[in-house]
Amino acid sequence: MIKMYDLAGEDENRRFSPYCWRIRMALAHKGMDVECIPWRFTEKDKIKFSGQEKVPVLIDGNNTVTDSWDIANYLENKYPYSPSLKMFNGEVIFIKFWVENVLHPEILRLLVLDIHNHLKSEDQSYFRESREKLLGKSLEEVVANRQDRLPNLQKLLNPLRSTLSKQKYLSGETPGFSDYIVFGAFQWARCVSGFSILNADDIIYNWRDKMLNIYEGLALNAVGYQV
Amino acid sequence: MIKMYDLAGEDENRRFSPYCWRIRMALAHKGMDVECIPWRFTEKDKIKFSGQEKVPVLIDGNNTVTDSWDIANYLENKYPYSPSLKMFNGEVIFIKFWVENVLHPEILRLLVLDIHNHLKSEDQSYFRESREKLLGKSLEEVVANRQDRLPNLQKLLNPLRSTLSKQKYLSGETPGFSDYIVFGAFQWARCVSGFSILNADDIIYNWRDKMLNIYEGLALNAVGYQV
Repeated sequence: MIKMYDLAGEDENRRFSPYCWRIRMALAHKGMDVECIPWRFTEKDKIKFSGQEKVPVLIDGNNTVTDSWDIANYLENKYPYSPSLKMFNGEVIFIKFWVENVLHPEILRLLVLDIHNHLKSEDQSYFRESREKLLGKSLEEVVANRQDRLPNLQKLLNPLRSTLSKQKYLSGETPGFSDYIVFGAFQWARCVSGFSILNADDIIYNWRDKMLNIYEGLALNAVGYQV
Repeated sequence: MIKMYDLAGEDENRRFSPYCWRIRMALAHKGMDVECIPWRFTEKDKIKFSGQEKVPVLIDGNNTVTDSWDIANYLENKYPYSPSLKMFNGEVIFIKFWVENVLHPEILRLLVLDIHNHLKSEDQSYFRESREKLLGKSLEEVVANRQDRLPNLQKLLNPLRSTLSKQKYLSGETPGFSDYIVFGAFQWARCVSGFSILNADDIIYNWRDKMLNIYEGLALNAVGYQV
């Protein structure tokens, strides 16, 4: 069975990495089982064999694959099965970079303290130091008045909102890897925080609800908050 | 032959609408000839038969099709020819909305006065009034200090830049409708202004250069500026 190192919080069942969620959903898309191994930020040694220091790390027999984009391409090329299990189109990579350059940084600035608070204590100091350096202020200062910054998030979500008003999924009639990439960002939020970033009357909320429920509620049943 | 109403400036050969450019490129993609009929903003009567007031308007035999997205879908469904002439993937619509919600407004704020200056005089007053209402200040005020706002544009182009560092076109190995949508924005700029919005060492510039040259230099040979 395929194995994957998956970022965990203090509760080892709290799996919140948006990059790992992409791959969890991609594996479910392909109908493949996976054994997820909980991993913490400070356990660099445990994945040293992969030649780098980040998760997800996928182990498929003799193959070790890192980087969520490369893993998704590996799965797409190695396990195409049938056209109906295709996940990729050319434009998916634009959505990947939009998520990583635009959406993730905005969500991070809302929830960085919640992420911190769900980490094991040895991870907390690593996380606080590295993220405060990245963000240029204390985690507490970053999230102060976060309610006031929700309109920024809502505004940058407009292309996603318009897309979902025209078709069921980003990918079209059925979900694809672009959906898993964007969903990963919302699942990241949902796994660490009760702070609500989507209103129930938002079409994005409805889409997220569908995403939570596919694959037998894989994401719905994950340890997280009801937001 | 297919006919298309195409937005024109005072010089009837200056065709600068980003929405019309999408369709010009899409028709070239399909290998189809088109007769482009110059049309100005104030000539609402001339396209009244289409049931709305905007270009592009496509006339294909007995079919009249409006809205660039609907026209592209019409062409894709009616003239697929072969898989190699496919233009669409599910995610293209996200890129459409990103361009229209994010990229176009930013470019408009840089070049709105240049657009105005290339219009026929009767269009100029219509354009000034409607755009000043939209933007909440005079066209001259909108473009003041535009040089200082170029970094904003460069920042929001990052997902496009990252994409083109990984693959030749937005669509993958060959150009597709997502490329035509984004290219339309740059061609809009190039047709109305000598103000340079892309640096020659930018990977987006290189991609735009390829787009200018495909289809026998269709876009390169259009009336515009060498920027």
